[in-house]
Amino acid sequence: MTSKSRTAILCAIAAVVGVGLGVIIGYFSHPAPAAPIYPTENPTISKQLMDEMKAENIMNNLKTLTSRPHIAGREQEEIVLVDWIKQQWTEAGIDSIVVHPYDVLLSYPKQNDSNYVSIKLANGTEIEQSQRKELVIDAEQNDQNVVDPFNAYSPPGEPEAELVYVNYATIGNFNALNRTYNISTAGKICISRYGRIFRGDKAINAELNGCIGLILYSDPLDYTVPWSGVYPEDWFLPPTGAQRGTLWVDNGDPRTPNYPSIRDAWHQSNSSLTLPKIPVTPIGYIDAIKYLSKMGGPEVPKYWRGGMNITYRFGPGFAEEHVNSLMKMSVKTTNQVATIHNVIGYVRGAVEPDRYVLLGNHRDAWVFGAIDPSSGTATLMELVRGFGAMLKRGWRPRRTLVFCSWGAEEYGLIGSTEWVEELQKQLQARAVAYLNVDMAVRGNFSFSANGVASLSQAVFDAAKTVPNPNPSEISSGRPTVYDTWKSIYPAADKPLFYGLGAGSDYAAFLQVIGIPSVDMRYTYDQSIGINTYPVYHSVYDTFELVSKFVDPGFKIHLAMAQVWGELARKLADVPILPFDCRLYAIDLIKKRYLLRLSYRSKMESNGINLSQLDDAIATFFNAANNIHERIASIDLTNAYETRMINDQLMQLERAFIDQNPLPGRVAYRHVTSAPSQHNRYGSTAFPAVVDAMFDIDVDPDQAGRWDEVRRQYSILVFHILSAAATLNPTV
Amino acid sequence: MTSKSRTAILCAIAAVVGVGLGVIIGYFSHPAPAAPIYPTENPTISKQLMDEMKAENIMNNLKTLTSRPHIAGREQEEIVLVDWIKQQWTEAGIDSIVVHPYDVLLSYPKQNDSNYVSIKLANGTEIEQSQRKELVIDAEQNDQNVVDPFNAYSPPGEPEAELVYVNYATIGNFNALNRTYNISTAGKICISRYGRIFRGDKAINAELNGCIGLILYSDPLDYTVPWSGVYPEDWFLPPTGAQRGTLWVDNGDPRTPNYPSIRDAWHQSNSSLTLPKIPVTPIGYIDAIKYLSKMGGPEVPKYWRGGMNITYRFGPGFAEEHVNSLMKMSVKTTNQVATIHNVIGYVRGAVEPDRYVLLGNHRDAWVFGAIDPSSGTATLMELVRGFGAMLKRGWRPRRTLVFCSWGAEEYGLIGSTEWVEELQKQLQARAVAYLNVDMAVRGNFSFSANGVASLSQAVFDAAKTVPNPNPSEISSGRPTVYDTWKSIYPAADKPLFYGLGAGSDYAAFLQVIGIPSVDMRYTYDQSIGINTYPVYHSVYDTFELVSKFVDPGFKIHLAMAQVWGELARKLADVPILPFDCRLYAIDLIKKRYLLRLSYRSKMESNGINLSQLDDAIATFFNAANNIHERIASIDLTNAYETRMINDQLMQLERAFIDQNPLPGRVAYRHVTSAPSQHNRYGSTAFPAVVDAMFDIDVDPDQAGRWDEVRRQYSILVFHILSAAATLNPTV
Repeated sequence: MTSKSRTAILCAIAAVVGVGLGVIIGYFSHPAPAAPIYPTENPTISKQLMDEMKAENIMNNLKTLTSRPHIAGREQEEIVLVDWIKQQWTEAGIDSIVVHPYDVLLSYPKQNDSNYVSIKLANGTEIEQSQRKELVIDAEQNDQNVVDPFNAYSPPGEPEAELVYVNYATIGNFNALNRTYNISTAGKICISRYGRIFRGDKAINAELNGCIGLILYSDPLDYTVPWSGVYPEDWFLPPTGAQRGTLWVDNGDPRTPNYPSIRDAWHQSNSSLTLPKIPVTPIGYIDAIKYLSKMGGPEVPKYWRGGMNITYRFGPGFAEEHVNSLMKMSVKTTNQVATIHNVIGYVRGAVEPDRYVLLGNHRDAWVFGAIDPSSGTATLMELVRGFGAMLKRGWRPRRTLVFCSWGAEEYGLIGSTEWVEELQKQLQARAVAYLNVDMAVRGNFSFSANGVASLSQAVFDAAKTVPNPNPSEISSGRPTVYDTWKSIYPAADKPLFYGLGAGSDYAAFLQVIGIPSVDMRYTYDQSIGINTYPVYHSVYDTFELVSKFVDPGFKIHLAMAQVWGELARKLADVPILPFDCRLYAIDLIKKRYLLRLSYRSKMESNGINLSQLDDAIATFFNAANNIHERIASIDLTNAYETRMINDQLMQLERAFIDQNPLPGRVAYRHVTSAPSQHNRYGSTAFPAVVDAMFDIDVDPDQAGRWDEVRRQYSILVFHILSAAATLNPTV
Repeated sequence: MTSKSRTAILCAIAAVVGVGLGVIIGYFSHPAPAAPIYPTENPTISKQLMDEMKAENIMNNLKTLTSRPHIAGREQEEIVLVDWIKQQWTEAGIDSIVVHPYDVLLSYPKQNDSNYVSIKLANGTEIEQSQRKELVIDAEQNDQNVVDPFNAYSPPGEPEAELVYVNYATIGNFNALNRTYNISTAGKICISRYGRIFRGDKAINAELNGCIGLILYSDPLDYTVPWSGVYPEDWFLPPTGAQRGTLWVDNGDPRTPNYPSIRDAWHQSNSSLTLPKIPVTPIGYIDAIKYLSKMGGPEVPKYWRGGMNITYRFGPGFAEEHVNSLMKMSVKTTNQVATIHNVIGYVRGAVEPDRYVLLGNHRDAWVFGAIDPSSGTATLMELVRGFGAMLKRGWRPRRTLVFCSWGAEEYGLIGSTEWVEELQKQLQARAVAYLNVDMAVRGNFSFSANGVASLSQAVFDAAKTVPNPNPSEISSGRPTVYDTWKSIYPAADKPLFYGLGAGSDYAAFLQVIGIPSVDMRYTYDQSIGINTYPVYHSVYDTFELVSKFVDPGFKIHLAMAQVWGELARKLADVPILPFDCRLYAIDLIKKRYLLRLSYRSKMESNGINLSQLDDAIATFFNAANNIHERIASIDLTNAYETRMINDQLMQLERAFIDQNPLPGRVAYRHVTSAPSQHNRYGSTAFPAVVDAMFDIDVDPDQAGRWDEVRRQYSILVFHILSAAATLNPTV
């Protein structure tokens, strides 16, 4: 080998090495790429979060939250608990916390002169006075801050009149009284059992039927079971328990419909408010039996009978020695302006900080509120701590998480409604979903959820990831929360998943501005026939009761935290939002079925072409399939394409929001979802059409009424077509 | 040098070369990056587009468009021109074209028995009948499709009564008649000159003041000048010219307020429509002089005098030999349902196809409509061809361009309003801006524009890029369209830029759903005191007139195309939307100034705290500064950050849209911008507050009225705060 050739070889080697080195240098000498803008979710976080959260913490949270009564507008609720939550969330390490105060109209009974009812003899003597306070069973109930039983927004008054029993005070009940039994309620005091419909609707029905006062009581048939004792033996309602609750049928501060009660905001004068005009107050069955047992008049039919060992009679008035006695009510409830607070915590999204996944629960309770709402609050607190721990480990969600602790829900969803009204523009543009938990654990039987159909699969998926908190369910082959849910509330091959009314804080989100919402809870076995959990809104809804009868190990609470957390994490973290528009289409088909079932022949014989609705839903179905086909082939590295699809998914629900409120309802604008006009707890498919059809046969203005049905039907069809269009390709 | 050291040197060189080569290889050996998702604008397109467009093409477009009368609902407009536009746009090569038909209520005079007015003698003879048709001056006007002068939506009727002259028929004019001159218009036929306010408001005022018929005429003072002849000598209105026009004061199909007149849509019955109740018809001054010269009663004050060589008198009735004669109107105008069409063309955005920049112009004309609207249509057609040519060269805008040819604007913005109603959900979520050109060239004096304040700088910038079409302006040192604009309509160091009323198709976009809008035109010298361009809505608005007197070389049209095109290109192409929120803040300060000027002392003495408004505007100003600081340091390679800022900029205008319509106005929801309640052509700052203050002193319900002022003031303050919040960082 010559020196030259050797040189050449060495040079060649040097060159090759150089090239290699250069390639490496060159390859890595690009400017550092920007932070990746298309991260996928971190799948390990799901388990980390679940493992992080502890039942014991939830128990301790509940203990703190329920240590004192915390009714809206009072110190314990508005100062002590607000401060505690701020401090806890600060410790959890979330990014920011904002407290939103609102001056709103609340209502309280009179201190030291609370409401009662009695029998007034002809000579003026009052006998059989009802208890002003529920009996103290545990020491904690002996707290001067316990607010005695009352119904919020009842006017004060002391009516005296004959008593009439009106069963559940539904429209059907009053119609039966008037039309079938020829019993007038005009000028009478009515007594109604709680249940079936929202109490505010009972008050409206009573007022419309001429009653001058309304007594609400909890019948043992609806709040106890024959085979078990009552609290403190079991969790069923003791005779002295009375259900507090609001009568306000719209949402938010009654003085500022549609607008937030922010500082200096204009509000209606008190005289122009649409609040109840007749006194209403609740009693326990320890008292109800005294009055109902003495009533005269015919015996009620079978389905009107409650569970007390007496003969239930319509009245009017009392029988035998009390035939000349009257029922008397003494109601001193008055309205008062107070400041309430929402506490809002944020975890900033790493990629899309302007997309919000909201989790909400109210904080205020009628008394101690261990179940309603503090089971939810205790859960939310642990969830915030859990997410905080994930942040400390370096994780951050793709989208922003927003944790909401609402004030004054019990009075009429006031805190959440005012906040949605205040932040309406931002939420319309940015909110991905609202996940509500009110009573996290109102029973230990099964998880259940309601919500918009497009989110049902995401809830199912979250529930599948959470271990069953009930060991006997696991040993019965149902290892997850989902399995029990599906087994207990089956609907074809999935769990039942109904729509939403306006029973909790999701109402303003969904029904006013079209944010996809879910409401979740663990519930009791509804087949035992009780109306809600037994001690609902009574002084007995305590930590004692929960830790003894409902969830001794707080494992159910933990499971709720895990489902809620996993659902929120998923919505906040996956690149493509887990909405299924095809399920929305199927839900529309179900609603169409219900409409046809009730009204088809009547509508068709009045010239309404129901195939328009069929065609619109078919168009929607195609659009839903189309977007999911596009999702299947999406390029996730293209941020704009990803965002576009997500925006379309997010906007779907908005497309069902009418620019005008539903007829006669100031704060409902969703054309396929609203609470029933006659029961705020229920939900109605195609509400404006159904409302227009309600009792149409007895309307003297048939032409006008059918014109209104046609108008609402046309608006419905338009919105379905419009929603379909939002899902189609944007050009 | 040793062989070794030489080898070492050679190897070193080889290595260095190798490294260099390697660096280059390495640098470029990355996998091909995904299509760039953060392209900046292509700055060469601006000039290419301007050079591409030709005045001659616009001239030929105008010739085609004005070859026949093309009133809404008739064949030439709805079939011939729609087909022509589709064919032209297809040839231009844009991505897609969609035609949207709507069945809407229009209005026409009776064929072969059109409207007239006359003097009816006591013996029943009619004399001095007005012309049913305008005189044929050029051959083209002799077309059987010319629709004779009428006012759309007038009811038919043949009232006979004394005549009263009501000047411009403003509220002030009627108040003066009633309060100062003690002349009642009840039961009279009123004659009003055109001008000052929208003719529909004249009809309302006449109706409210008891008139049983209204004659509208064009006074030479308002449509001619003393130093020049009339058409065909110059472009001023000849005596026989009569101004057609609608009386409908709301927007869209009168039968379907708020909802689109799509197939099978419900509509109001004709009997429940809020259309004029008294016959109204227009005449030329060739006829008006016959009636006005014979009138009795006192002489009118100076400002009520028109330009005819007669003594203007109030009436009522005629004088001298006609003292017993009555005015008679014969109006056979009737409403008819017809199908109208919008033609919508799309150029898909390369990066953000779900962001729309819309350009719109109406197509329908009362007769030939060479200026109104075909000057705009001819311009739009060339613009589409120009953008098509850019597409063929491989360019594609970042965002989607949407070209809109509206039907039935003349009847009340019907095509655009129905379309916005139909696509409301998509447009709310996706529309960046709407750029309207109605009469592109209603004069050759200067460019001018109105619009939302946040877009003013973008319009200025576009106008600065376009060469001045007027050579004498260039030689006077004003080389661009902007320079003349600023010189003729100066406001501090910029051109005047007022807000929008509801005079053209931007109304639904801006006032109903909050899409930032601009309206542009070249205009005449308004200092000569004419009310609009002289032959407005007459048969003489022809190609002949335009090419002879207005824009012989079509250079003005071309300049309009260039400004419009550059503004659209910029909005569609630049990464950060060219909105200036600080200018919006300054505009709010101006509006606040006007409010204080008119109402401060009255409002303050009624307990309204105007510092709330000051504070809200200050908050808004800070938020506006904040977002522009963030924009200055934005990382454009971060698609999500870029999109977030753009979404905030885009949403700003939406934040001023109230969820409820302004009081008494079914289709206006913008709290800082609406047409004046009493003149649809004008715009009002803070409309609901100003409306509530209007004539407040004479309202017998002072408490109720001031409560309404306070309510509207509170809603205004809330919206400004809400808008500020939308600009702040999203977490």
